[in-house]
Amino acid sequence: MIPSDQHLQIGSLLFPGLDQIDLTGPLEVLSVIPNSTYQVIAATKAPIKDLHGLSMNADKTFDEVGQLDVLHVPGGPGQQALMEDETFLSFIRNQAEGAQFVFSVCTGALLCGAAGLLKGRKATTHWSAFHLLPYFGATPVNERVVIDGNWVFAAGVTSGIDGALQLAAMLRGQRVAEQIQLYMQYHPEPPFDSGTPERAPVEVLEAARNAAGELTARRLETAKAISAKLGIDPAGEGV
Amino acid sequence: MIPSDQHLQIGSLLFPGLDQIDLTGPLEVLSVIPNSTYQVIAATKAPIKDLHGLSMNADKTFDEVGQLDVLHVPGGPGQQALMEDETFLSFIRNQAEGAQFVFSVCTGALLCGAAGLLKGRKATTHWSAFHLLPYFGATPVNERVVIDGNWVFAAGVTSGIDGALQLAAMLRGQRVAEQIQLYMQYHPEPPFDSGTPERAPVEVLEAARNAAGELTARRLETAKAISAKLGIDPAGEGV
Repeated sequence: MIPSDQHLQIGSLLFPGLDQIDLTGPLEVLSVIPNSTYQVIAATKAPIKDLHGLSMNADKTFDEVGQLDVLHVPGGPGQQALMEDETFLSFIRNQAEGAQFVFSVCTGALLCGAAGLLKGRKATTHWSAFHLLPYFGATPVNERVVIDGNWVFAAGVTSGIDGALQLAAMLRGQRVAEQIQLYMQYHPEPPFDSGTPERAPVEVLEAARNAAGELTARRLETAKAISAKLGIDPAGEGV
Repeated sequence: MIPSDQHLQIGSLLFPGLDQIDLTGPLEVLSVIPNSTYQVIAATKAPIKDLHGLSMNADKTFDEVGQLDVLHVPGGPGQQALMEDETFLSFIRNQAEGAQFVFSVCTGALLCGAAGLLKGRKATTHWSAFHLLPYFGATPVNERVVIDGNWVFAAGVTSGIDGALQLAAMLRGQRVAEQIQLYMQYHPEPPFDSGTPERAPVEVLEAARNAAGELTARRLETAKAISAKLGIDPAGEGV
């Protein structure tokens, strides 16, 4: 826990083609952390659309933000266009260096990896990109939330809610996290048992893999290129 | 299920001070329903901030939207300012009349109630507003998702995700809902057991009730006034 009288600067990244719930799930938690300032941060203040078309506006641009205490990096297919965007990656790299916590959700982990921040870390990401983590020097751990030092990794999409509640407890204690959870009425009852590749019906998994196939192939090519650039041997990193 | 070749018009309402995840949780599901058009609808296209400060932009204004097949009504504290807003309530009333499904999330149920649409229905809403449902002529059912005919009610905030997956199955079948669930990696693992008033630690519930106290009192006053206007006897409606 961080002393309750220490004001926290918390920021979430927003970029075109992100998966909005990678941002908005954790936002529901992070924006109500006691004694904190929460901001959505992007390269521009112009409207930015997520994968599904939701149009959102950032509170601050990169150069309007000071050092954050908590940096939240969401993912989604739009991550792919930023894997060599030095402005975006530098922002992550510089903020992560001074932050007390970094919180990666879904394929936000690939962005952190492209920034060179995953070397030697235990990490997780969306199931469709899980096999790519070693290319960034990370050891993949197949859990919904993976904590490695001051890094919190949530797996795919909705796992950001679980990760954010864990992070809330790390920041302000379990009672605070529990009160947020109660307000959110977060006592989930998924109507079907199809939330992971291990549990989904075979034909559902196959259809989902096919739908993600092209993007997954492009992500692999990018991961290989970045791996070479960072001088990482993916076979030597816990695969 | 609706015939798969029937194109669906799906719309979610956006208004100032809503709780963004009442909108964005279901959006993650509703925006990817096969053979559908999904739109966020508001009174204006100017940026609209949620309770937590997230700034969003509607795709369409009320008068730019034709008849929807699925109307999604989120909630949040901003609902209170709309309980006598005839433009807003008329939109809900007129759309609900022609829609194949109406999906109320959280205190979106109070808006539907103010529009006179809850008389004789089984319904649910956020736990802090549950006792207000009879003032709108509804019978409160303490379940996470309540289905009454072509109405789907989700309880508080995050329950909209569960409700949306049920609605997806009603629209396009279970396999479609399961594939969406897998993409979302929706296999929740809440780190604490504090998601309902029944399960939260006593002091957490008390703190949450205190935090909601003033708004709850205002909502009760409004509910009484609307009850009188609609000619409803709350004591006769299943309390």
